[in-house]
Amino acid sequence: MARAGIGADLEGVHAVAAAVRSGRVQQLIVEEARLRSPEVQQMVEEARRRGAEISIVPDVAPRASSAAPQGVVARARPIPLRSLEELAEDAAPAAVMVLDRLEDPQNVGAVARSALAAGMSGMVVPSRRAAPLGATAFKAAAGALEELPVSIVSSTAQAVATLRRLGLWTVGLSAAAETSLFGLALLAEPVAVVVGAEGGGLSPLVEQRVDLCVRIPMPGPTESLNASVAAALAAFEIARIRGRC
Amino acid sequence: MARAGIGADLEGVHAVAAAVRSGRVQQLIVEEARLRSPEVQQMVEEARRRGAEISIVPDVAPRASSAAPQGVVARARPIPLRSLEELAEDAAPAAVMVLDRLEDPQNVGAVARSALAAGMSGMVVPSRRAAPLGATAFKAAAGALEELPVSIVSSTAQAVATLRRLGLWTVGLSAAAETSLFGLALLAEPVAVVVGAEGGGLSPLVEQRVDLCVRIPMPGPTESLNASVAAALAAFEIARIRGRC
Repeated sequence: MARAGIGADLEGVHAVAAAVRSGRVQQLIVEEARLRSPEVQQMVEEARRRGAEISIVPDVAPRASSAAPQGVVARARPIPLRSLEELAEDAAPAAVMVLDRLEDPQNVGAVARSALAAGMSGMVVPSRRAAPLGATAFKAAAGALEELPVSIVSSTAQAVATLRRLGLWTVGLSAAAETSLFGLALLAEPVAVVVGAEGGGLSPLVEQRVDLCVRIPMPGPTESLNASVAAALAAFEIARIRGRC
Repeated sequence: MARAGIGADLEGVHAVAAAVRSGRVQQLIVEEARLRSPEVQQMVEEARRRGAEISIVPDVAPRASSAAPQGVVARARPIPLRSLEELAEDAAPAAVMVLDRLEDPQNVGAVARSALAAGMSGMVVPSRRAAPLGATAFKAAAGALEELPVSIVSSTAQAVATLRRLGLWTVGLSAAAETSLFGLALLAEPVAVVVGAEGGGLSPLVEQRVDLCVRIPMPGPTESLNASVAAALAAFEIARIRGRC
């Protein structure tokens, strides 16, 4: 993944179709058998109209990075990254989703989809580990990463400090916290929510730097939620507290 | 998948460890290299203590059905299925998650995890299509399917009719509905929530049979949520309306 942007390599019908609609697909590679699908046909026509190079091949697997490219692969102009300042500028007021140590690209894509649906300002992703914003994340995001502003940072802890300085409340999700996420009044103000890794939770430095940690109360006998589910509950709680849904 | 039960074949550290703790693993197959992990060591010791046959092999891939078995595969006594009557009997009052046309086993497992965390009574899964409750679903459920009561039905529409007859409100999630899920007072009463397929939504017959459809309001520009995220929002809304979280 080039640091200059994301989404240069795409796979899967929904992710590629969304990039075609954004007008950024330069090369579209489609399996011949998939042309029977009206959705794929329409996508190919629109890509052609927008000047993309179209290749029809017997099998896209050799050009795909995921196990299920759905017969469609594309190369596209990358989406430019945003700065933390840009994400914090949202006058809605700002609601920024910060990912800490989430390594599963499917989860990263799923979080983007929920964040956009809930009307959040953008998402912050650390660059430290394996590129989390490749074709698999774009596929799981089902088009959401075409629209949701994304900032990539070298350190989540530093990003938390910067967002605080920019006037956002920083709230970490932690199973050990005492305060409940639900009904938290400060979510009405500019806020950044930090979601940790499955199992491991937030990194110690991030947990130390956030203004407060909150937990998602669980009446059942389970210890933890899927990270993308926890993020979605937080995203929609912000929208609810703000009277937006 | 035998209709008599679920969870006979397991893969992945968390899913297998949960089944070992449930005392139902009969054969545990572990890759030699994984024995370095304390979590895996502990699992092997507990399985041995509980009388399971342990096999250490160089590679579990030939015995695994998913792409990422994490070096651990098990054969176990299946978990018995429940009847719709059993799910409806929960005096909490009953809150049943019904899946309609969800075919991605990862989503099915993720829904089970959220349903258990939110304290729901159980989950209803249709048997019509490819077995949705195999090793991949158990892996995604991260242990939740060891505890959440599950009923398998031949028709979701018929299950909805039965649950209505048993005194549950039946509520479908539909993007086209006018009523919002959030704040819905009848969720305090015995209720079954029906979640449809990604993209396709509820099947027409199910949409016709439920008492009412509700939508998840989305302030952002997205049209749809991941099915497991939609299910999680519904599961936690029931818990909130009931004052349980």
